[in-house]
Amino acid sequence: EIGIRDYQTSHRTIQLPGLVNIAAFVPGLVSRDSDDLQRITKASVAAGFSMIRVMPVGKDGSISDVKSLKIAQQNGKRGAYCDFNLSIAATSDNASQISHAAGEVGSMFIPFNHLSDNISKVAAVEAHFDAWPTHKPIITDAWTNDLASILLLASLHNRRIHVTAVILKDDIKLIAMAKEKGLKVTCDVSIYALYLSQKDYPSCQFLPTAEDQAALWEHMETIDVFSIGSLPYQLAHFLNQPADVTVGIADALPLLLTSVAEGKLTIDDIKAKLHDNPKEIFELHDQVGTSLEVEIDRPYVKEDTGSWSPMTGKVLKASIQRVTFQDQVVCLDGSILPVPPRGNDMSTHVAMPPVAAISSPAV
Amino acid sequence: EIGIRDYQTSHRTIQLPGLVNIAAFVPGLVSRDSDDLQRITKASVAAGFSMIRVMPVGKDGSISDVKSLKIAQQNGKRGAYCDFNLSIAATSDNASQISHAAGEVGSMFIPFNHLSDNISKVAAVEAHFDAWPTHKPIITDAWTNDLASILLLASLHNRRIHVTAVILKDDIKLIAMAKEKGLKVTCDVSIYALYLSQKDYPSCQFLPTAEDQAALWEHMETIDVFSIGSLPYQLAHFLNQPADVTVGIADALPLLLTSVAEGKLTIDDIKAKLHDNPKEIFELHDQVGTSLEVEIDRPYVKEDTGSWSPMTGKVLKASIQRVTFQDQVVCLDGSILPVPPRGNDMSTHVAMPPVAAISSPAV
Ligand SMILES: [Zn+2]
Ligand SMILES: [Zn+2]
Ligand SMILES: [Zn+2]
Ligand SMILES: [Zn+2]
Ligand SMILES: [Zn+2]
Ligand SMILES: [Zn+2]
Ligand SMILES: [Zn+2]
Ligand SMILES: [Zn+2]
Repeated sequence: EIGIRDYQTSHRTIQLPGLVNIAAFVPGLVSRDSDDLQRITKASVAAGFSMIRVMPVGKDGSISDVKSLKIAQQNGKRGAYCDFNLSIAATSDNASQISHAAGEVGSMFIPFNHLSDNISKVAAVEAHFDAWPTHKPIITDAWTNDLASILLLASLHNRRIHVTAVILKDDIKLIAMAKEKGLKVTCDVSIYALYLSQKDYPSCQFLPTAEDQAALWEHMETIDVFSIGSLPYQLAHFLNQPADVTVGIADALPLLLTSVAEGKLTIDDIKAKLHDNPKEIFELHDQVGTSLEVEIDRPYVKEDTGSWSPMTGKVLKASIQRVTFQDQVVCLDGSILPVPPRGNDMSTHVAMPPVAAISSPAV
Repeated sequence: EIGIRDYQTSHRTIQLPGLVNIAAFVPGLVSRDSDDLQRITKASVAAGFSMIRVMPVGKDGSISDVKSLKIAQQNGKRGAYCDFNLSIAATSDNASQISHAAGEVGSMFIPFNHLSDNISKVAAVEAHFDAWPTHKPIITDAWTNDLASILLLASLHNRRIHVTAVILKDDIKLIAMAKEKGLKVTCDVSIYALYLSQKDYPSCQFLPTAEDQAALWEHMETIDVFSIGSLPYQLAHFLNQPADVTVGIADALPLLLTSVAEGKLTIDDIKAKLHDNPKEIFELHDQVGTSLEVEIDRPYVKEDTGSWSPMTGKVLKASIQRVTFQDQVVCLDGSILPVPPRGNDMSTHVAMPPVAAISSPAV
């Protein structure tokens, strides 16, 4: 229907399945009694993300052993507003420990640029490849030569690898070439990296240059997944803006849908890169009774909501009308309803079937 | 026969085919009117090397385009005492030029650590892979992450790649793993790197540590080729010794054969890694009427010959008795006979058959 406010253009209401943010940055992840995870799940579900994969690297520490994993799990028990899973981060010397945590996390993240010693990087990561269960996903944020190294290991070990937060032209080209040649590599791009560049924020090294950004758009078919990642938080920090832990989450879908309104993306791109592909790559559970309704083609100026966003004051052409989670409406016309937290820790969902289920007689 | 000097041990005389040094460092390679190549071919044939593959990187410049190639070819016309071939070096921006020189050189060398800009290394090399004829050898001296990058490109392009002058434990392990996983990679180790380490020359970064060196010996089956390389010249420079351009050449075979005498290597290792494998990997011509006779098990102290060697004063247990090149004895009991230079520039030998031979009717 065309309503009274529809003076500028006709608009469309579109149904989408519950979306997945495969890289949710939770600053206080391993800080005792942090409510960051709860706040982020709340902002996520309101923004259409009914499932988040929590990055194992926080602001003040990482999930890198059983002890830090326990803290994150404990924080998860405060109540989450959407489903989530946890991962473990590889460090230079935890290859022997990660297998102990493997059953309780969704994937291993290799923060390649953070391993300390340059000389033995390949060797350190090789040990992790051998220690990690073959069926579980491996994710890395490696750039340039580090990316090439880890792709080589993946190639030689015949392992799937997911590259997160690609921003460089050469890297997306390398991934495109690797895919073309049959390597089992997938990748995501942070949504902000598609809309903000060093042209907007000079010398901001974790943003793409204008040239990099153009290459990302040109390689849209190479990009398997859109993510939120830590880029919004990093940008706020870089600009000395008071960074809310939920920064960037609310902007994600309106930005992408605005590109749909402008003919630069399709609804199928959104579905593929925020639902179908994340579910397939990370073997995520299906979320029944979960969906959202969005409206596109109605332009508005993004207002200041009290928490900083680089998008404030910009014209967006899409908004989220309704979010249904587990058959309950949790968000209506942008307002979060007073519902209890009903999300679950799904970390063990993709774990191997328990040994008992294999070894004991089935009938 | 046991001669009069054979008081210490019985000795053996062994016939070997003419040997190949796949990495001959020629300092004045692209300097006009340099006689370095001539001097090096003379020292080579006297040391049992009847074929040398000249590294395209000299002291004051590289063969990186048609112009520098011409100078090297001109220097080769002064007369060479053994056969040789030339190669071309990849630079950050000569990908489009190398194909013009491809027909006149034996291989492309990618001096990975010398390309200027870190960020686009992988991209720069990718262009060379695409520009270089698929049947011609590619060689690199890459280490650590650079090595991983180039192995990835080789893997993705299904190309053979030869890694020269491996010295690091992690690198030989990576190559061993890559071979095991089916990658078409071969490698050589500089002979000095098997006998000298940072234990002998502390803080000499281009020598292996004692641990690296032990790893090289442990991976002897991974090492396809022994080479001379630029290591002897670099070491002389590092130690501020007056470096003769022929440094290291005369030591090569006596060192290896001493290890045979000591049971650490076999004659078959020498034949494989200095003749059979080099010929196969680099598709070298067969040298008829070319052979050498060596004697092992007769210990002697290496004398000062006037030109510096780190081996002077050390006990060696093998020596070269006779070298025959093109059916002519050119060296007897260590003395070079007054023979004319009869070596040839074999650079075009492995080139593609000329188009005419393919397209014109054969009968
Ligand atoms: Zn409407
Ligand atoms: Zn392995
Ligand atoms: Zn679904
Ligand atoms: Zn389940
Ligand atoms: Zn004798
Ligand atoms: Zn290519
Ligand atoms: Zn032969
Ligand atoms: Zn020939």
